Amino acid sequence: MQILVLGGDGYLGWPTALHLSACGHEVAVNDNFARRGYDDEMDVDSLVPIATLDERIATWREVSGKQISSYVGDLCDPAFVHQMVRDFRPDTVVHFGEQRAAPYSMISQAHAVYTQTNNVVGNLNVMYAIADIDRDVHLVKLGTMGEYGQPNIDIEEGWLEVEHKGRSDRMIYPKRPGSFYHCSKVHDSVNLEFGCRIWGMRVTDLNQGVVYGAETEQTKLDPRLATRFDYDAVFGTVLNRFIIQAVLGHPLTVYGAGSQTRGLINIVDTVECIRIASENPADRGEFRVFNQMTESKSINELAETVASEYPNWPRAQAQVAIDHVDNPRVEIYDHYYKVVHTALESLGLKPTLLSTALIDHLFDVVERHRDRVDQAALMPTVKWAETTNELPSRTRARASELAPAS
Amino acid sequence: MQILVLGGDGYLGWPTALHLSACGHEVAVNDNFARRGYDDEMDVDSLVPIATLDERIATWREVSGKQISSYVGDLCDPAFVHQMVRDFRPDTVVHFGEQRAAPYSMISQAHAVYTQTNNVVGNLNVMYAIADIDRDVHLVKLGTMGEYGQPNIDIEEGWLEVEHKGRSDRMIYPKRPGSFYHCSKVHDSVNLEFGCRIWGMRVTDLNQGVVYGAETEQTKLDPRLATRFDYDAVFGTVLNRFIIQAVLGHPLTVYGAGSQTRGLINIVDTVECIRIASENPADRGEFRVFNQMTESKSINELAETVASEYPNWPRAQAQVAIDHVDNPRVEIYDHYYKVVHTALESLGLKPTLLSTALIDHLFDVVERHRDRVDQAALMPTVKWAETTNELPSRTRARASELAPAS
Repeated sequence: MQILVLGGDGYLGWPTALHLSACGHEVAVNDNFARRGYDDEMDVDSLVPIATLDERIATWREVSGKQISSYVGDLCDPAFVHQMVRDFRPDTVVHFGEQRAAPYSMISQAHAVYTQTNNVVGNLNVMYAIADIDRDVHLVKLGTMGEYGQPNIDIEEGWLEVEHKGRSDRMIYPKRPGSFYHCSKVHDSVNLEFGCRIWGMRVTDLNQGVVYGAETEQTKLDPRLATRFDYDAVFGTVLNRFIIQAVLGHPLTVYGAGSQTRGLINIVDTVECIRIASENPADRGEFRVFNQMTESKSINELAETVASEYPNWPRAQAQVAIDHVDNPRVEIYDHYYKVVHTALESLGLKPTLLSTALIDHLFDVVERHRDRVDQAALMPTVKWAETTNELPSRTRARASELAPAS
Repeated sequence: MQILVLGGDGYLGWPTALHLSACGHEVAVNDNFARRGYDDEMDVDSLVPIATLDERIATWREVSGKQISSYVGDLCDPAFVHQMVRDFRPDTVVHFGEQRAAPYSMISQAHAVYTQTNNVVGNLNVMYAIADIDRDVHLVKLGTMGEYGQPNIDIEEGWLEVEHKGRSDRMIYPKRPGSFYHCSKVHDSVNLEFGCRIWGMRVTDLNQGVVYGAETEQTKLDPRLATRFDYDAVFGTVLNRFIIQAVLGHPLTVYGAGSQTRGLINIVDTVECIRIASENPADRGEFRVFNQMTESKSINELAETVASEYPNWPRAQAQVAIDHVDNPRVEIYDHYYKVVHTALESLGLKPTLLSTALIDHLFDVVERHRDRVDQAALMPTVKWAETTNELPSRTRARASELAPAS
């Protein structure tokens, strides 16, 4: 199968490209290196050093004998997207190529606007390229569990059978997104469902949980194949942050009460889910939604898991404390959270759940690179309820912010 | 009350500004004249000649003794929006300032992207200005009944009480928008509901039906106060088109089977709804949705109403035929359609329903300006299911389309 991975230089895009290539697919990656640019903007870096895309591709050829081709360019450039799709002629387009951090989208007006235009326009351009060139192409689009929020009913897989006043309909599951980033993913889903109706597109929308883990079967074959490991308060996710805090001997910082719950997925399951979705395409005209997560945990449970495992790690230094800090986000704590996530498992996914072995492995990863940790980057600076024209101290201004706002 | 009307030079924005001013409010209008620019782009014009914004404002001062101030600028410019809100300090912002034609959004990739970025970014900038300057400002935002599509259950006013697997929640009503324009309005609603949660905004989202009618109590006071009357296949709405076809002796062109149903509202009710919403603001943190329509009719009913009234019009020439033509849109015909629209009526709206008197009046308006009708502009050229790099013959290219697309 010909598979084009958009955002193929990112945390998940790159391991996905490797996994699909290892499974025998013909793979091309696209990226504009925006993710590396955000690091420059925020003055942070991946904990694990990463090679350039060219080095990664050359290493993979060396290690596996397989070729991954690359298209460097911006999905917001419609002519580029058109040309790429026409040139590579994919059977499947896997779309990771969006700004994917909730805190980043909440930094300022310009970051919110950038996130929504970058994500929505890039996705529209991909849709138009498919509609123009070959409507049989299957688009596998990354969304997030954060689109749903915390409804008081079970979270179904994208669609809901609604009974109302004695009548019924199958409707898009109502969303309650938690940031302007999460809103952008809802917008994408709205556009895609419409594309399925008018153009008969084949779409699989993957509402993914919080991903954790540092490596996959392929990335660990060579250090030059490593994927990024983000730990800063903007791009890092909660489990990675707790691991680093434990290894450095700092208290684990839980935002707010900590009873808020997240859907989770291991990076090795992510790449496998993409393979499964790609090899089992949606029908023509079908807007198919999978909840790409394998388990739910509260932030408190995650903190307690890390804190209780840490003393068992052979290189442990001391006990780990848990601190509750002001929550920079606006979110609810005491909520129902039950997610249906059976579709991918019914297609063959064998979940790899969070384990003490994985946590020990992450402790090792952090220990190996502890000299690269910038502790100041761990504390949250972006606050949901505030708007400001002053950027967090570590954030350089976007061009549109250089003009005075009033 | 200080009321700022965004898009205050448009078909509804201008009559709304006049109505609010006549009712004693302090009114300012904002526009960037994009709507007049679309006329140039499409090579069409309002059937009823319209004065410039400055002439309109001067005439209103002459006629009423009241002053409307104006802010000329683009809502996509965040510094401009900020400065305008800081300068005028509105109690209420009425937001009509978006690209509002479904066919326009479906012309090409560039028109879809323009519509979504223009609408979403403008609205985000308004949200940020309110969040920065005064979160007590009430935002009255225009949406459309076309966001809902044709669900098989009753269309409630924006929210739905959902019962599912023995549990319940009050959730955003699931949408099924009918064009990339309609999608943009859904995106706005998603962003606004989020803004209410994180910033405690006061928002009234008005899902408006298809508006018909040529004048209001104020616009008819002087020809220089007239509002636009669009009849072309891109910006004109169905009733106006039928009226023109009848007066010119052409068959009324029904798209497809004609059993598709629309919610409707008279322009005199629109301006009154905006007054009612403004004078009865949403609470802090409340995302309030009203269905701003007063009756539902199928396209066939509208055609039959016009065709059967035409012979009664004193200047009628002949019988009027009804032709079914290929539907340029992708839509369903045999559907349930029942809309709840009691909120505005419970706040005092007295609906003005479609009447033969109004239809006769519209025949008169068209007769008066029949030499201005461009018959070629009446036929649909924008097709939902097709994507093309060739623009409809009457449409000039947007800048981004001047570069080759492949």
